[in-house]
Amino acid sequence: MTLKGKVVIAQGGGPTAVINQSLVGVALESRKFSQVDRVYGAVKGVRGIIEEDFLDLSQETTHNLESVARTPASALLSTRDKPDEKYCEEIFHVLKAHDVRYFFYIGGNDSASTVHIVNENAKKSDYEFRAIHIPKTIDNDLLVNDHTPGYGSAAKFVSQAFTGVDLDNRALPGVYIGVVMGRDAGFLTAASSIAQKYYDDGPHLIYLPERPFSKEKFLREVKEVYDKWGRCVVAVSEGIKNEAGEPVAKELIQRAEYDAHGNILLSSSGALGENLVNYVKENLNIKRVRSDTFGYLQRSFMGCVSEVDQHEAREVGEKAAQFALWHNQDGSVTIHRTGDYSVDYQLTALEKVAKHTKSMPDHFINKGGNHITEAFRKYLRPLVGEERFFAHHLRAPQVEKILKNR
Amino acid sequence: MTLKGKVVIAQGGGPTAVINQSLVGVALESRKFSQVDRVYGAVKGVRGIIEEDFLDLSQETTHNLESVARTPASALLSTRDKPDEKYCEEIFHVLKAHDVRYFFYIGGNDSASTVHIVNENAKKSDYEFRAIHIPKTIDNDLLVNDHTPGYGSAAKFVSQAFTGVDLDNRALPGVYIGVVMGRDAGFLTAASSIAQKYYDDGPHLIYLPERPFSKEKFLREVKEVYDKWGRCVVAVSEGIKNEAGEPVAKELIQRAEYDAHGNILLSSSGALGENLVNYVKENLNIKRVRSDTFGYLQRSFMGCVSEVDQHEAREVGEKAAQFALWHNQDGSVTIHRTGDYSVDYQLTALEKVAKHTKSMPDHFINKGGNHITEAFRKYLRPLVGEERFFAHHLRAPQVEKILKNR
Repeated sequence: MTLKGKVVIAQGGGPTAVINQSLVGVALESRKFSQVDRVYGAVKGVRGIIEEDFLDLSQETTHNLESVARTPASALLSTRDKPDEKYCEEIFHVLKAHDVRYFFYIGGNDSASTVHIVNENAKKSDYEFRAIHIPKTIDNDLLVNDHTPGYGSAAKFVSQAFTGVDLDNRALPGVYIGVVMGRDAGFLTAASSIAQKYYDDGPHLIYLPERPFSKEKFLREVKEVYDKWGRCVVAVSEGIKNEAGEPVAKELIQRAEYDAHGNILLSSSGALGENLVNYVKENLNIKRVRSDTFGYLQRSFMGCVSEVDQHEAREVGEKAAQFALWHNQDGSVTIHRTGDYSVDYQLTALEKVAKHTKSMPDHFINKGGNHITEAFRKYLRPLVGEERFFAHHLRAPQVEKILKNR
Repeated sequence: MTLKGKVVIAQGGGPTAVINQSLVGVALESRKFSQVDRVYGAVKGVRGIIEEDFLDLSQETTHNLESVARTPASALLSTRDKPDEKYCEEIFHVLKAHDVRYFFYIGGNDSASTVHIVNENAKKSDYEFRAIHIPKTIDNDLLVNDHTPGYGSAAKFVSQAFTGVDLDNRALPGVYIGVVMGRDAGFLTAASSIAQKYYDDGPHLIYLPERPFSKEKFLREVKEVYDKWGRCVVAVSEGIKNEAGEPVAKELIQRAEYDAHGNILLSSSGALGENLVNYVKENLNIKRVRSDTFGYLQRSFMGCVSEVDQHEAREVGEKAAQFALWHNQDGSVTIHRTGDYSVDYQLTALEKVAKHTKSMPDHFINKGGNHITEAFRKYLRPLVGEERFFAHHLRAPQVEKILKNR
């Protein structure tokens, strides 16, 4: 029995460099199925559904869809709305009115949650309906998945940024602290290490939310590196927490802002980096201490994309359409590593992806809790793709001094 | 009469993405001349000279030199030292002891100044000596030059960053303020506009050090854009000045740090951006207001290079060697535009480049003092190279509402 009706695709949460690949993957694949009337895109995620704000993607050209696929950030626009039961009922109400039988939502674990509730509503009403969650997040924190689309490209950005600032710091030595996104999972901050090649390459220290952050330990370790190399590059996750589990940034940010989930907004303040800079300046006799907070650049920078990430983002979209339209199934599309390097896609129960998030496993973090392991590098390398950039140093011999030796 | 002796090359000031192209340009070209004994690289700019810290680049392989050329930041390391007369005497003293007859210094106008003083010392001592300044700065503020090596690549980074954050801001609307490097010249901030394509693309407002910054005017203009497009992306130069000519950031940065030139350090603080964010939040009823300070990423990011910039940086190095070794001349290599797009290189008297810096000319800034002109876009476009990235929006038709129309 083939379920005839419309398709709705929506994008939620923070944009990534490849989220439009998933959108276009679903759109083009769905259009191949005769039971699909129309393919709609909801403008501004679930908000667009309750406002009946749809674009008819069936009337979009393939050329423009392909151009959009290569453009970062959500082409259908996004929302930070976190739907409750009532909101989900409204979603369902609108979808039903438009004879929508297939719903695809591209987002993180909150989006999986929304898809789950909407799907439960449909079941209760005996409305034949397929709902699929498509993974996306630069944080790489979705359960079940080996990794998530969006992460590889953001990791590439962070890696290229650290390769550059490390060279900068080598040329004009001092302490440099780069603050990277990641509230609870350190995957993105850990990516700072991927292009390390020479023994003295930074980041020399990496602090992740998975390990309690102690300012005293930090100071001691910065001093140790500085004494050894005459400089120190540090990667710090915005979400580092103190021994009590409280975000270190929390007490530093004035006029703190909270999102719909009650989480403090970390990314738009340089407070954490600047505080650590002042702490180093006050306690170590080092003149040049600098910090950058990478902010929004790391999730939307134009022209820094992992081709592997791009292809996988496309494929999770295509697979989502196939799971729903060929196999008449609901769930979350998940990525599984099947080789070095190969992946396969499965459909997982929504509730398994929706509820919690994932942190860096222990074997990816070094014993000192201030760097990553080779196992992490092996895990990450294929995800940033073939195009990789390495620094090259001069290795010409030193000239003998004349005046000093007289 | 051919002047026999050694060559010394040094790199000064802030690193750029292509400064090593100039280094390798001089090194490889000098090695072709039989009157050149050895090609030395001074480690840490002029500081390396007075410390007799030289690498013998004659004993470097071509392959590694070419690899270094493609690596951003100063491979010979750098310095912020600003030599006075006595320092320059020491430089000259060391160069003489090593029988150095050709000195090439890659840097901004302060480096040109140093080259000039060292050269005057040589003249006074009747020491046959050729000294050439090779232009480099992401600020694009050197006199006589149409533009400077390093600018095109940094401009490309700023343009790609703004294309990305603009898409991000479109997806999750609000006010976004990106703070870009540039103490006195707005060239780099102005580059934020180069990839604008759709009428509503940001940055909608651009504030440059060349025009006095008024917070009231800023607020009025942000409101106007926000009322029109429902969002507003702003590019702000870190060096914007108030009506009195004082940097706006000056009063905001706690524990201000000053460089050797007595200039306040602007790049390592998010204070300006965060202050403007709070000002908008307090005065306009807009919830989502964010800022990023691009910091060091914009001058050293690995993997974002303009190929035109790269070639020109190489050519100014080669030409420098030719001016000194073929033509026995001193001076600063300058870039002149000779077509759309073509350039030629000349040798200009050092004092003409050394003393002052250049600002954006009036015809590059719009009447309102809050954006750039088409003339600037025409000027900049060839400098960022052929590889350019543009956003693509969906243009599928809107679907008719069912529930709302009932």
